[in-house]
Amino acid sequence: MSAHEFDTDIRVVPTGEGGWHGRVSPGWNIGANPNGGYLLAIAGAALRGAMPSHPDPLSVTAHYLKPGVPEADCRVAMQVLRGGRSLSTVRATLVQEGAARLELLAAMGDLGTAAAVTPTLVPPPPEMPPPEACVPRSPGEQGVALPIVDRLDIRLHPDEARGAAAGRARVGGWIRFRDGREPDALAALLFVDAFPPAVFGLLGAVGWVPTVELTVQLRARPAPGWMLARFETTDLLDGRLIEDGLLWDSTGRLIAQSRQLALVRLPGAAPG
Amino acid sequence: MSAHEFDTDIRVVPTGEGGWHGRVSPGWNIGANPNGGYLLAIAGAALRGAMPSHPDPLSVTAHYLKPGVPEADCRVAMQVLRGGRSLSTVRATLVQEGAARLELLAAMGDLGTAAAVTPTLVPPPPEMPPPEACVPRSPGEQGVALPIVDRLDIRLHPDEARGAAAGRARVGGWIRFRDGREPDALAALLFVDAFPPAVFGLLGAVGWVPTVELTVQLRARPAPGWMLARFETTDLLDGRLIEDGLLWDSTGRLIAQSRQLALVRLPGAAPG
Repeated sequence: MSAHEFDTDIRVVPTGEGGWHGRVSPGWNIGANPNGGYLLAIAGAALRGAMPSHPDPLSVTAHYLKPGVPEADCRVAMQVLRGGRSLSTVRATLVQEGAARLELLAAMGDLGTAAAVTPTLVPPPPEMPPPEACVPRSPGEQGVALPIVDRLDIRLHPDEARGAAAGRARVGGWIRFRDGREPDALAALLFVDAFPPAVFGLLGAVGWVPTVELTVQLRARPAPGWMLARFETTDLLDGRLIEDGLLWDSTGRLIAQSRQLALVRLPGAAPG
Repeated sequence: MSAHEFDTDIRVVPTGEGGWHGRVSPGWNIGANPNGGYLLAIAGAALRGAMPSHPDPLSVTAHYLKPGVPEADCRVAMQVLRGGRSLSTVRATLVQEGAARLELLAAMGDLGTAAAVTPTLVPPPPEMPPPEACVPRSPGEQGVALPIVDRLDIRLHPDEARGAAAGRARVGGWIRFRDGREPDALAALLFVDAFPPAVFGLLGAVGWVPTVELTVQLRARPAPGWMLARFETTDLLDGRLIEDGLLWDSTGRLIAQSRQLALVRLPGAAPG
C-alpha cells in the first residue's frame, strides 16, 4: 500500500452493501472545510474501486450540497445507470454524519487505452515561468488556515499571485504533491480545485467562494512531474461566477478541463 | 395555454406520485432520434413545474443513457437533494418504455431577480452577418432527415455552413422558433444542442455524434428575438470530443454557456 498522504486520505473500502467507506482527513482543508476537489477525489476512488474496467472519469459532475466534515467517516453510495463497452454511467452520493454532502454523476471509461492524438485542436499550455520563479500559494491568502498547502506545492505566476494586483480574473501556475506522489486521474480531480479562485485576481481575496457545481472532463492520464494549470472566470453576475480550468502534464499534454459554478458575495451586488 | 409547438411538445403534468408525465414528439428529431436538447427541455419543464420558486436551471448536467423514443410517452421522476433560499439541487430521470434515457443533476434558481451586470468579464458576441445573409441549416446535411429544422429556423455563418469547408471545428449563427414562440430558459436548453456539431467544420458531416454528457449554465433569461450562438470543439481525442457553446440574446447579453462530451467515430482512430 502506498505511503503517500493522498492515497491514504482517499482510501475507501467496500462496505459489502454496494457502498464504500472512507474517512475525510483534515489535511486538505481550506479553512474549516475539506477542499471540494479532495472530496471529489474520494468519491472518484470509490467509483474506481467499483468499476475496475472503467477506472477513469471521462466526465464527472459534482454538486456540493453541504460542506464536508473533516476528521469524520464518509460513505459513498453508488448506482450504475448504464454499463457499456467503452463507458459506464454512474451516480454516487458522498454521505457524512447522515447527510448527503456531494451528489455525483459520471461517465467512466479507460484512459489507459488512449492512442490517437490530434494536438492541433487543443490549446497549447500557457507561457509560465519555471516553478522556482513562481510564488508559492500563501497559507494566509484568504485570511483562513490552508492546511492543503502543507500537502500540495502550488506555485503561482508572479503576476497573478497577489490577488487584485493581476487586474483580471485569472490564475495559473504549477502544482504537485509535496511528498513525491506522482499525479494520476484522481489527483487531477483535486488539482482542478486547489488553486485560489481566479476571481481573486480581479477582486482580491473576497473570502469564501463556495462551489455549487464542478464538472471535470479527463482526457488522458498524466505523466509524472509538475502539472501546469490555468483558471479563468469569464462570467460573474449576481453573486454567481463560472470558472474554467485547464490542466496539462509535464509533457505539455492537456489532461483535464474543468468548469465550476460558484457563489461569491460582492459588496453591493444583489443577492444571488 | 400556448399554441406554440415547443410548449405543446414539452408539456408535462404531475402524475400525483411526485413524478411528471409527458410525451416525446417526433417533431424535434435528428434522424430517427429525438434531439438531446429537446429531451433536456422536457426534463427542464418538469423541474420547473416541481419548483415554482426556483424555475431556472443555473446549472444542469444531463447524461444520455439511451436514445429517446419519438412518439412515445415519457415520465420524469425527481428527487430534491437540497432546498435552499437562493438555489435548490435536484436530480431527475427521464424514463421511456421502462428504461432510463436521461439522468440529470441540476442547481435550480430564479433568474427573474437578476440585477447587477459586470459585462467586462463576458466575451462579446461574435461578429455575425445578419440572419438574411446566413445559410439555413440544411435538412440533408447529415444524410438523415432533420425534422427539427421544420420547427427551428437556424441560420449558419456562411463560412461555416458547408462542413469541412470551414477548416476548423467551429459553427455559429442565429436561431429562433419558426412559429414565433419567443425564447426562454427552456428554449435555451434546446438551442445549445440544435446546431450541427462544430466538428463538422473540420471533418465534414461525419455522421452521428452522440452526446455522452451535456452541461448548461444559464445566467439570465433571454430577451425576445433571434438568439446568437457559437460552438467550438477544441478537444478531439480517441473518438471523444468536447464542444463548448455560448448563447446570446437579441440585446447582446450572454444567456448560457454549454459544454458537452460526445463520441465521434473517426476513420483510423482507435476505439474510444
